[in-house]
Amino acid sequence: MKKTNPELLPGERLDDLIIGGLKIIQHSRQFCFSIDAVLLAHFATLKPNASAVDLGAGAGVISLLLAARGCKHIDAVEINSYAADMAKRSAALNRLENGIFVHALDLRQIKEAFAAQSRDLVVSNPPYRPIGHGKVSDIEDIAAARHEIKANLNDVVRAAGYLLKHRGRFAMVHLPQRLPEIMEEMRAAGVEPKRLRLVQATSKKNPSIALIEGVAGARAGLIVEKPLIIYNDDGTYSQTISSYYQNDPA
Amino acid sequence: MKKTNPELLPGERLDDLIIGGLKIIQHSRQFCFSIDAVLLAHFATLKPNASAVDLGAGAGVISLLLAARGCKHIDAVEINSYAADMAKRSAALNRLENGIFVHALDLRQIKEAFAAQSRDLVVSNPPYRPIGHGKVSDIEDIAAARHEIKANLNDVVRAAGYLLKHRGRFAMVHLPQRLPEIMEEMRAAGVEPKRLRLVQATSKKNPSIALIEGVAGARAGLIVEKPLIIYNDDGTYSQTISSYYQNDPA
Repeated sequence: MKKTNPELLPGERLDDLIIGGLKIIQHSRQFCFSIDAVLLAHFATLKPNASAVDLGAGAGVISLLLAARGCKHIDAVEINSYAADMAKRSAALNRLENGIFVHALDLRQIKEAFAAQSRDLVVSNPPYRPIGHGKVSDIEDIAAARHEIKANLNDVVRAAGYLLKHRGRFAMVHLPQRLPEIMEEMRAAGVEPKRLRLVQATSKKNPSIALIEGVAGARAGLIVEKPLIIYNDDGTYSQTISSYYQNDPA
Repeated sequence: MKKTNPELLPGERLDDLIIGGLKIIQHSRQFCFSIDAVLLAHFATLKPNASAVDLGAGAGVISLLLAARGCKHIDAVEINSYAADMAKRSAALNRLENGIFVHALDLRQIKEAFAAQSRDLVVSNPPYRPIGHGKVSDIEDIAAARHEIKANLNDVVRAAGYLLKHRGRFAMVHLPQRLPEIMEEMRAAGVEPKRLRLVQATSKKNPSIALIEGVAGARAGLIVEKPLIIYNDDGTYSQTISSYYQNDPA
């Protein structure tokens, strides 16, 4: 439901993230976050005092959820200056402006703004599809969030490899279809894939989402976790998903 | 149960493969097949009139099961000449000597015995662990079947890439832990990973076995299938596994 709110610009709405009582500003003519972002924010291994970067942060959902999980310093990098502005206002609205720092920046220029090997955690929910795969949105900003029009997989993984300290972690949500490329790019960037969790809508369906985490400089050896099932057979949310939507930081 | 049989040498036993009424000669001081081989034989995409190679065939279980599924020409390549001899006798015992051709050969010498791009299907249940990972068997032949003492992952995947026709398929069973390396090696050998199925002992356990199939010369795009569950919650075999142990070729 739309609410009227002084922080909102025309076309914007205030959505409830439930967890931690968080709210997020979104716009109907911009990319609006999906469950993928929520899954990633909970999947990423978050160590105490970790300094994190959210690559392609959009309106800031993952950054907000990481803050709710206790992350004290998150740099949210977003090329779309309008989305970056919403993220900045959402951070302020949630009184997280001292923990979430929004940068209206092309992640392909990461080296100009961030020091190498300076971060403990990098997260990303990047565009999933190469150009030529699936219909491209008529809305330019939504197209760039879904298709590799600006940054592509290689750009995102290389930026993560650049940012991470030795033993730092890179967690990404993506399509299972692209796992061979993802694993190859991660290894090429010195980020060894260490955890994989596939997400299925139900126990009967093939996985439609992949959550993958790599560790900079680690030895080879991937733990594939049991699948994350979104819906029980009766159509209700599974216990894991329900726990993500409780008003209590996980 | 051991049976006395004129085909058997001292220490050998005749095991029942159930499917197609097949029997297999095994030896207690050699590597004896596990469920992994049965899963692979059923997972591999088998097209009519396919000519197949089984790399590291051991006592021939996968070759026998592929024959039961209708494959008319299988070259079973095995470095261990004693295991190769058992495979040859098992083929004869099952009257499959005109469909299964056993070669006591090091798969690293595949180019000396087989023409390039000559096969439609390559299957392999190779040694899973690099040397230094886990206890190595005191029995030399068992050690070589479990650890990469002779052929390693790179050798197996390169041999498959050499043997396959354009659009031919390579199906392998391996550890989930090694999927990043496996996918990288397959892509380097021109065999694009196209199907992945993870196997879980139960719905609650993490996957312990990976079934992967690649296609020579294909475009990128991996279908991850829903997990194959071995045991139902009540401890009985799942429907899929039960179907593999019916006396009727699948």
